[in-house]
Amino acid sequence: MSGLPRVTVWNENRHEQTDEEVAKIYPDGMHAPIANHLRNEGFEVRVATLDEPEHGLSEEVLQQTDVLTWWGHKAHREVKDEVVERIHRRVLDGMGLVVLHSGHYSKIFKKLMGTTGGLYWRTSGEKERIWVVNPAHPIAEGLGEYFEIPQEEMYGEPFGIPEPDSLVFISWFEGGEVFRSGCCYYRGKGKIFYFRPGEQIYPTYFHPKVLQVIKNAAAWASPTDGITDRSASKGEIDPYKIDLINRPESIKWNQTE
Amino acid sequence: MSGLPRVTVWNENRHEQTDEEVAKIYPDGMHAPIANHLRNEGFEVRVATLDEPEHGLSEEVLQQTDVLTWWGHKAHREVKDEVVERIHRRVLDGMGLVVLHSGHYSKIFKKLMGTTGGLYWRTSGEKERIWVVNPAHPIAEGLGEYFEIPQEEMYGEPFGIPEPDSLVFISWFEGGEVFRSGCCYYRGKGKIFYFRPGEQIYPTYFHPKVLQVIKNAAAWASPTDGITDRSASKGEIDPYKIDLINRPESIKWNQTE
Amino acid sequence: MSGLPRVTVWNENRHEQTDEEVAKIYPDGMHAPIANHLRNEGFEVRVATLDEPEHGLSEEVLQQTDVLTWWGHKAHREVKDEVVERIHRRVLDGMGLVVLHSGHYSKIFKKLMGTTGGLYWRTSGEKERIWVVNPAHPIAEGLGEYFEIPQEEMYGEPFGIPEPDSLVFISWFEGGEVFRSGCCYYRGKGKIFYFRPGEQIYPTYFHPKVLQVIKNAAAWASPTDGITDRSASKGEIDPYKIDLINRPESIKWNQTE
Amino acid sequence: MSGLPRVTVWNENRHEQTDEEVAKIYPDGMHAPIANHLRNEGFEVRVATLDEPEHGLSEEVLQQTDVLTWWGHKAHREVKDEVVERIHRRVLDGMGLVVLHSGHYSKIFKKLMGTTGGLYWRTSGEKERIWVVNPAHPIAEGLGEYFEIPQEEMYGEPFGIPEPDSLVFISWFEGGEVFRSGCCYYRGKGKIFYFRPGEQIYPTYFHPKVLQVIKNAAAWASPTDGITDRSASKGEIDPYKIDLINRPESIKWNQTE
Repeated sequence: MSGLPRVTVWNENRHEQTDEEVAKIYPDGMHAPIANHLRNEGFEVRVATLDEPEHGLSEEVLQQTDVLTWWGHKAHREVKDEVVERIHRRVLDGMGLVVLHSGHYSKIFKKLMGTTGGLYWRTSGEKERIWVVNPAHPIAEGLGEYFEIPQEEMYGEPFGIPEPDSLVFISWFEGGEVFRSGCCYYRGKGKIFYFRPGEQIYPTYFHPKVLQVIKNAAAWASPTDGITDRSASKGEIDPYKIDLINRPESIKWNQTE
Repeated sequence: MSGLPRVTVWNENRHEQTDEEVAKIYPDGMHAPIANHLRNEGFEVRVATLDEPEHGLSEEVLQQTDVLTWWGHKAHREVKDEVVERIHRRVLDGMGLVVLHSGHYSKIFKKLMGTTGGLYWRTSGEKERIWVVNPAHPIAEGLGEYFEIPQEEMYGEPFGIPEPDSLVFISWFEGGEVFRSGCCYYRGKGKIFYFRPGEQIYPTYFHPKVLQVIKNAAAWASPTDGITDRSASKGEIDPYKIDLINRPESIKWNQTE
Repeated sequence: MSGLPRVTVWNENRHEQTDEEVAKIYPDGMHAPIANHLRNEGFEVRVATLDEPEHGLSEEVLQQTDVLTWWGHKAHREVKDEVVERIHRRVLDGMGLVVLHSGHYSKIFKKLMGTTGGLYWRTSGEKERIWVVNPAHPIAEGLGEYFEIPQEEMYGEPFGIPEPDSLVFISWFEGGEVFRSGCCYYRGKGKIFYFRPGEQIYPTYFHPKVLQVIKNAAAWASPTDGITDRSASKGEIDPYKIDLINRPESIKWNQTE
Repeated sequence: MSGLPRVTVWNENRHEQTDEEVAKIYPDGMHAPIANHLRNEGFEVRVATLDEPEHGLSEEVLQQTDVLTWWGHKAHREVKDEVVERIHRRVLDGMGLVVLHSGHYSKIFKKLMGTTGGLYWRTSGEKERIWVVNPAHPIAEGLGEYFEIPQEEMYGEPFGIPEPDSLVFISWFEGGEVFRSGCCYYRGKGKIFYFRPGEQIYPTYFHPKVLQVIKNAAAWASPTDGITDRSASKGEIDPYKIDLINRPESIKWNQTE
């Protein structure tokens, strides 16, 4: 892929409407600092939220999205299954997905992982220290050996995920827990990154290192080779077209998607 | 786990009823040679098929199953979602799952993988040569460097699966394809093995090396440490119980499953 | 492999001779509680130490060893290269290797990993909490979600190792660090497990859960399928013998070891 | 890293001097088409060969190298150990390494892998079909589902390598073998890619898809975050510098490289 990806920053955007404490921290929504940072870094950015029609994620929007970031929390159940299916298909076709914090329990993440996404948690303003365990990985760029978030919610192991294809970060929490907090996955033609921090009652998405990670992740998750546009096939889904070069004519190929 | 696992051999068992050619090869069903072999090897074996009530996979049966093997093909859609949910839960709780051949496209495999399970295929009686690429893995026991199946259906890459946690076999096909034909996955407390061969029109499940692999896989996929029995919790699912040792009392732990 | 493996418990055994504090904790050497536990669990166990001829690891001993455990610390440099070569070869031929604590910096571990084995460390009697992050793995058997060692040396990331083929444990330390403390590797026909705890000034190798892990690891690392005995080939090493079945005679196979 | 990496294309360059057949195909050396292609793609490229002083890989050259490509075959033994050590250190510090074809058996590759690098081989001009099994990986960009090389040497499994951190390609050969022909590894701060094709008697390095892979690999293996320059530390190697923020002063950190 040439050029920086087109990113759609998706946010549930409910806490910001109903919880004064959150609204003070994120007056323009939690998506705002993320979207602003990515724009400043040269990405083409749009924002979408739960309460828009189709959650702001129509077929048309997805077709113009190379990487989707996802923050959801208390309204996972309200996300429509047909939109989840649409995103799932798009990821397998090549779109990147960056799942943030409580998105571990979103429908789309659980569908892509095949596991519960379960974990332990405690909200008591503990310090989180995020250690880089794969310094060679592009998502570790510019972070040094670790960085700290002064106050965050704790997420603890066991985390109900497949073993990551690359594990980039492990978090340490004051209270005695660890967490695989930066996890890379390949699925179909798409790349997925789960990144732990981001409880709404802390100003985590203004933290420079957190924003750096999200930027690195958006760049890494960018499609390798364009995105297969299966929506355009009008029902006749034939995602894999292959030439039968140099074969006996009597041998035919079939394809199960 | 001490002792050999209790295995339930599940078979769609339709081709055997409707297709004379298949019935000749497998007069007692495709499950029969698999079940017989595992019994001879000392496993405790039961058989279950699609057309039994609840597909033979009631809550009670699953509670007595340490490892489930799965062969399905033309009736994937008929498998009830509630049974799929039950198996999915049981796998995450520790039950092993050995998915055979066209089971790549079963509901349970796709749900656990999060991907399409798609592949290329061609049924023209080609030779398949199965290479062992991880000779250290227990599933490779007793196989040597490769083994051959004189006539099989071809399955070809790209195969729509997550990158295996261990890749044990790669198949070579006469017509020009390769396939990741022995794939290990950890999911929750459970272990999953996908094994490629087994088209119904060939006597593949009488092949000694194929039976050896299924036996090896059943042993490997056996629960590590018992199976969490969440069915018994009657709605109050609290799978992770943890002591709050050495902590301030004001710090509580919560758990999202 | 049938039957429990023959284990050789190797210990540098120097601190026990020169450091009174250590000698009090381990009057019979640090190898003693490990060897005793494995014997009690039914393994066939022998002990070998640095100051024996050939470090107690002659060709003959290795030929009778299915799994080798390794504890070394201050005398890594004294281990002879020819013995390291012998062990390296034996591991690739199928022998299991369980590397304990400061063995992260042994010649054999670095040779097998290809990396520095570097890490941070601090000896100040901190609590270590070891979290199980792959509860499906056989090495996690019987441990629950985590266990604690009241006082241990700290080892911290970044740890100079290849990304493990399976990561089973992550340690949390009071002072603010995390560590990948249970790491599985496949190399050739052999299996390797690195396990972090075991600083000589603490009675770690009497900790029941630590002993449980070592036992689990020895069982897991046991050879899958016998061990190729290349020492017997008298110089003509031809480890991979393969039949040229079903091929044109004009096509020959060659082999580079 | 911003900007394209500085690539040093290393070639043994002996066959070209002594074998007429090879000289006809590669009159300017096998490095020439690789270097030319990378230059055309905008990389800053230099060439180094075995018979130059220090094999053309002085400390100074390595300090100006972000990615090194390596083709060696019949003179592996002549590569000086001190140069191998230098490259090894540089890779762990962040330099990318792209190992080509018979480089599987080079000192540097075996040292980084910890395994034999062994394989089967046969030179009989067979067709190789290279299948992309991880279409999401950047190294798969622009290749489609597979590509073919009309005549190549066969390399067959078992291949004596660690399980790749990502497996991108699997090769199919006419004679009945498969091979993991595109293998990614993270080691320290460095990234390594092994790519199979390139026997000297075929014009493989003029094949557009082969050149595309080498370009993709050079971009992927580019350092994430600069390269730690340990050569500059004049003996006092202290690669990991870390602040002791927010800790009791009595707790000190130590570091073993």
